[in-house]
Amino acid sequence: MYHHIKELMYTVRIGEPDPRFGNMLLEQFGGANGELAAAMQYSIQGLNCDDPERKDLLMDIGTEELSHLEVVGTLARMHLKPLKHDRYAAHADPLIAIAGGGGVALINSMGNAWTADYLKVTGELDVDLRSNIAAEARAKIVYERLINFTDDQGSIDTLQFLMTREITHMKAFQAALESMGKPTFSIGKIPPTPGLVDQYFNTSTGIGERGEPDGRGPWNQGGDWEMVMAPAFTELESPDAGTRQNRTNGSTVKN
Amino acid sequence: MYHHIKELMYTVRIGEPDPRFGNMLLEQFGGANGELAAAMQYSIQGLNCDDPERKDLLMDIGTEELSHLEVVGTLARMHLKPLKHDRYAAHADPLIAIAGGGGVALINSMGNAWTADYLKVTGELDVDLRSNIAAEARAKIVYERLINFTDDQGSIDTLQFLMTREITHMKAFQAALESMGKPTFSIGKIPPTPGLVDQYFNTSTGIGERGEPDGRGPWNQGGDWEMVMAPAFTELESPDAGTRQNRTNGSTVKN
Amino acid sequence: MYHHIKELMYTVRIGEPDPRFGNMLLEQFGGANGELAAAMQYSIQGLNCDDPERKDLLMDIGTEELSHLEVVGTLARMHLKPLKHDRYAAHADPLIAIAGGGGVALINSMGNAWTADYLKVTGELDVDLRSNIAAEARAKIVYERLINFTDDQGSIDTLQFLMTREITHMKAFQAALESMGKPTFSIGKIPPTPGLVDQYFNTSTGIGERGEPDGRGPWNQGGDWEMVMAPAFTELESPDAGTRQNRTNGSTVKN
Amino acid sequence: MYHHIKELMYTVRIGEPDPRFGNMLLEQFGGANGELAAAMQYSIQGLNCDDPERKDLLMDIGTEELSHLEVVGTLARMHLKPLKHDRYAAHADPLIAIAGGGGVALINSMGNAWTADYLKVTGELDVDLRSNIAAEARAKIVYERLINFTDDQGSIDTLQFLMTREITHMKAFQAALESMGKPTFSIGKIPPTPGLVDQYFNTSTGIGERGEPDGRGPWNQGGDWEMVMAPAFTELESPDAGTRQNRTNGSTVKN
Amino acid sequence: MYHHIKELMYTVRIGEPDPRFGNMLLEQFGGANGELAAAMQYSIQGLNCDDPERKDLLMDIGTEELSHLEVVGTLARMHLKPLKHDRYAAHADPLIAIAGGGGVALINSMGNAWTADYLKVTGELDVDLRSNIAAEARAKIVYERLINFTDDQGSIDTLQFLMTREITHMKAFQAALESMGKPTFSIGKIPPTPGLVDQYFNTSTGIGERGEPDGRGPWNQGGDWEMVMAPAFTELESPDAGTRQNRTNGSTVKN
Amino acid sequence: MYHHIKELMYTVRIGEPDPRFGNMLLEQFGGANGELAAAMQYSIQGLNCDDPERKDLLMDIGTEELSHLEVVGTLARMHLKPLKHDRYAAHADPLIAIAGGGGVALINSMGNAWTADYLKVTGELDVDLRSNIAAEARAKIVYERLINFTDDQGSIDTLQFLMTREITHMKAFQAALESMGKPTFSIGKIPPTPGLVDQYFNTSTGIGERGEPDGRGPWNQGGDWEMVMAPAFTELESPDAGTRQNRTNGSTVKN
Repeated sequence: MYHHIKELMYTVRIGEPDPRFGNMLLEQFGGANGELAAAMQYSIQGLNCDDPERKDLLMDIGTEELSHLEVVGTLARMHLKPLKHDRYAAHADPLIAIAGGGGVALINSMGNAWTADYLKVTGELDVDLRSNIAAEARAKIVYERLINFTDDQGSIDTLQFLMTREITHMKAFQAALESMGKPTFSIGKIPPTPGLVDQYFNTSTGIGERGEPDGRGPWNQGGDWEMVMAPAFTELESPDAGTRQNRTNGSTVKN
Repeated sequence: MYHHIKELMYTVRIGEPDPRFGNMLLEQFGGANGELAAAMQYSIQGLNCDDPERKDLLMDIGTEELSHLEVVGTLARMHLKPLKHDRYAAHADPLIAIAGGGGVALINSMGNAWTADYLKVTGELDVDLRSNIAAEARAKIVYERLINFTDDQGSIDTLQFLMTREITHMKAFQAALESMGKPTFSIGKIPPTPGLVDQYFNTSTGIGERGEPDGRGPWNQGGDWEMVMAPAFTELESPDAGTRQNRTNGSTVKN
Repeated sequence: MYHHIKELMYTVRIGEPDPRFGNMLLEQFGGANGELAAAMQYSIQGLNCDDPERKDLLMDIGTEELSHLEVVGTLARMHLKPLKHDRYAAHADPLIAIAGGGGVALINSMGNAWTADYLKVTGELDVDLRSNIAAEARAKIVYERLINFTDDQGSIDTLQFLMTREITHMKAFQAALESMGKPTFSIGKIPPTPGLVDQYFNTSTGIGERGEPDGRGPWNQGGDWEMVMAPAFTELESPDAGTRQNRTNGSTVKN
Repeated sequence: MYHHIKELMYTVRIGEPDPRFGNMLLEQFGGANGELAAAMQYSIQGLNCDDPERKDLLMDIGTEELSHLEVVGTLARMHLKPLKHDRYAAHADPLIAIAGGGGVALINSMGNAWTADYLKVTGELDVDLRSNIAAEARAKIVYERLINFTDDQGSIDTLQFLMTREITHMKAFQAALESMGKPTFSIGKIPPTPGLVDQYFNTSTGIGERGEPDGRGPWNQGGDWEMVMAPAFTELESPDAGTRQNRTNGSTVKN
Repeated sequence: MYHHIKELMYTVRIGEPDPRFGNMLLEQFGGANGELAAAMQYSIQGLNCDDPERKDLLMDIGTEELSHLEVVGTLARMHLKPLKHDRYAAHADPLIAIAGGGGVALINSMGNAWTADYLKVTGELDVDLRSNIAAEARAKIVYERLINFTDDQGSIDTLQFLMTREITHMKAFQAALESMGKPTFSIGKIPPTPGLVDQYFNTSTGIGERGEPDGRGPWNQGGDWEMVMAPAFTELESPDAGTRQNRTNGSTVKN
Repeated sequence: MYHHIKELMYTVRIGEPDPRFGNMLLEQFGGANGELAAAMQYSIQGLNCDDPERKDLLMDIGTEELSHLEVVGTLARMHLKPLKHDRYAAHADPLIAIAGGGGVALINSMGNAWTADYLKVTGELDVDLRSNIAAEARAKIVYERLINFTDDQGSIDTLQFLMTREITHMKAFQAALESMGKPTFSIGKIPPTPGLVDQYFNTSTGIGERGEPDGRGPWNQGGDWEMVMAPAFTELESPDAGTRQNRTNGSTVKN
């Protein structure tokens, strides 16, 4: 059950309204990595969760994000209010001006209606926590970019508050994942096929526009990695390996 | 530049077509965590990437996912083919039957058209790698569930191949992230607010339906964590702290 | 600011899970007239509202709808849980089964992701209240239909609770609208054109399949109503009336 | 069956084309509260309607809205035509310029494709009429805002015509609803739970930013209203009332 | 201006309602190739068209498609009506049953809301006519498949009528295109680059699963065609030809 | 199976970045007629195709379009890069600036996420080829318009390359269609109803705003065409002809 207190989690004050910046702020109100997306992703994961302790974590952060939605919405509302009457300002977001009368709506900075397609909810707790860690990282960088696009101190202070909380959540989700004690790269119950799982397929070859050769690093060399060069032109070790005759233009190419 | 070889990365063979299972398979063809989503997410991240080595990684895996799209599409096609003529089978997916003539389409198992809203592309390399790690974890669990919903050995073999590759990619993305050497929880350049970043807001309180108390764990206790109980009813240490008078029903509630 | 209590607004108990009914319940979770739509419509109207008293009303009901979202989501979750493992049950909603592992998602009964396109938020208070009255009427009838599609007493009791609250909200919104004291049919500030506003255009003529003549009633006769028969074939009293020469097939048709 | 007369319902004349205003006009062509939405909502309700007289009403107004779609589309077309060749004008709506060659498309002012998600069609006649009353109120206020955003007299005249007709329709739908003779707040057939239906849940409490206390008015006091303060912290009269132990931070809070 | 006659363009009679077939019929009501898509595509092209004679053609057919929308909607309505009360039937389309009360909605057979993304409107008349020819071909094949999925003679007769009209329209659009007298393959005003325009890029090579070699036909041999084998591995004749060093796995591959 | 070569199909060089033009270029990256749409439409048609030779054609062109996607994406990326840091430039596309950090995304010039609703895939080969011919014509005209909106020679050269290839593809698809040897206007297997198929319904009558009479041409006169004037007011030769009594405003109208 939810209760609302008529007070913002962070008191918002701004100087001169900046409609174009208000439009940008909608990214974090009704955008793909914004506060409604966060609130809904965690709350619904929580609703589905059978682990009571981590369910509580998901509900804690999901509820906090609802409060953030209110904060960023209030901030955007302040910057967008002139759209109701100011013809020039209205160019910043005609949808807000004409259909919304200067009020915020659940849209992003290009006017797209918020959609649950933004959410990542699988019902597999450790997988959901990984999605959340990534979601918080995305939200953090978006807040940072917003800070870089304004000089209004009140707006910056509010965004700094919200941005900080994303790191808090990222830490909490990471700790919750680690505390589950699952081996690294163990997802679900069916193990991957040994051997095949260690093969790196080099499917993009040649020399890049700046003369760079194929990239090498710990993601494809060292440890258990086995490099498979250009598998489209190589006989893979698979059940059908014997029948494969890869060709470019008729002549066999081996790597 | 792309080249296509008229051979699948994994040769697909099935027994009896199962239209309802074919419909389920569309989750990994045109669904939110499916192969087109993976191919596009990584390839577009790669296109935007300024780090030549990790750009190559993104293009390698993005290209491999295109080959997976072809494999899972071929598998789904085999199971869905009867929809063209069989009225009962058509119930499994009337859109495929009527509009598609039994051929696959870029839709998920409930007929929703694929949308780029599924993608997570920020142009911040380490953030994108985190999104990719989570994406691979999601794809793995979806393949596992598909395996659990069929008895057809040919289908299982194909899905096992694809599922294994997701773990391969997850390992590669994790290694690429770690090799960037960024401190943990350091996203972008603007640091979070000290103190505030370590506060855990307990915004969901009370006793759950099974009598469970508030969840505690390394995500909110130990280390630097400071617990803030029910912040809606607490004076937060913020610029506006002095003016806050939180009330429920008129009387002040302190925690 | 929001706070969550780990208790449902209505305790949900069900008998045997019924996956197909669980799928239907998603209409009120992630559907066009469901609880998220209600919660968001009212809360965002509230965020934009400059009338403090009716803003409070919008926040009161918006917050209650969040609690309803939790109730109907929990009910749906109970009915959908078998989809994770039961192949036959999975046919009820393959998206929930495969992508969601039997957990609820913000989709409707046909698997469409929730979208803010469902919302009606104009930033004009009396107009928004009218949209809310209609929204509550829609939600009521959908709950009634759901009740008619199940025999499970626990489900019925829960739905009866939620359905009742919609009527409560409808009454509150109606009272709030009436208390604004605006003259009937006065929307905004620009008055409609006298005369033209009282003309009823009979644009659909002829005799229907059951022999019915043109419908007449207080919506087009009596009071100030003036009937304009088939305006496509009539010279309208408008600035361009003098130049109009309506024709069907070359010959002028007068009505 | 439909017939089209090659004449507009209102002859459109404009002065200097204003591409940015043309872009705004798309709200009423392909936007959420625009003419296609109105035409489709009423016509499809009409198609489903079993009451022959009100079905005729729905078809009359649905057909008139098609003529309005043509009028507002023609007006927008005149303002948008320069986008085909004028690079500066093209900034007003690059989609219209590049993909549409300066012609109108079924999009709103931010380029979103029209979607049937905008429609409210329940198949319950009185509910549909309520949705229509609200829809007309929204359309009216949007036309008023458009009038306020232009100085072009020809555009204003056209919009005044269209705006007036929305009030006409609002009156007709209201009369049609009232003439059904249903008791107020009686929707469908299942009655709400007595007692519960009169409880107003005060779920948003505290003192707002301008020091305002909880809002009171005829929507929650007087008549049959019973006020329930902060239900998240109150034992509700429900089947599970005996077992509820609401707590904030461990200690019971009563209101 | 539009006028509606209360009579269908084709009188619809059915035998026993078949809800699953009713659900399939929605493809042609609110689906991608359905009657609303046709009506809107042609009518909006017509609205934008500067050629008065072909504009009339577009309006003629656009208006006829509105009448078809009414016919196919009436047919679907008859088959879907049982969904309001029949639990088993409701499985055919829970959205229609629960949200629509057995009435039709602007959705396709998988419940997706109609979207203007289905439309192809470029404002270039000959291009639009080509899009329309293809649209009619698609609509024809969809009607044919629907006919193959029912035994109900009344439904078949109605669909045969609608299917026939698509061929009529296809002929009309083809004649309108040809009568424009544009040279074949001349689109717009900027000519393609000579030489390059005749090169066929063979980008998919190798031997397919059934042993088939590269396909050859009048689409890549004879006439002016020049075959370019595997351009990813070939130096193309382009401004940057001199700098290209295509490699697979380090060693140059020539074709 | 796919392979990627780290080289563009056309080397992209630009002068000064132009963010507004970069935004326009997104039409051909993530827009309705853009390269991803082309790549997916042809590749999925190819996957479903049972004719090995034309399947190869579909895969050849589908793969080439992937390479075009990379080229146009690289071109857009160059023009959009300043959005990351430049506040004024960011107005060109705030979504790219804030959410994307100046990198491209699969959106069109108005920020709409790419959707598979753009695709036309029926599984009927000749119909699909017709859709492809139209798709190439649309892509050609869009490239031409883009060329007209820039003075940057490097951009023009790249767009000229891509535009030329669309004509190449159009020619190939046309040849592939013609080589199938199907009689003109023969789609599928069920023949249209003789007589009815030759009737042109004149459903839009009267005199247009410029005084133009009904359009006549080879699309409705000559050959087998039979003109039916205003069918809403005419007794059609149909099974129900005898019962029809069309009326406007009570009096029968014959044409």
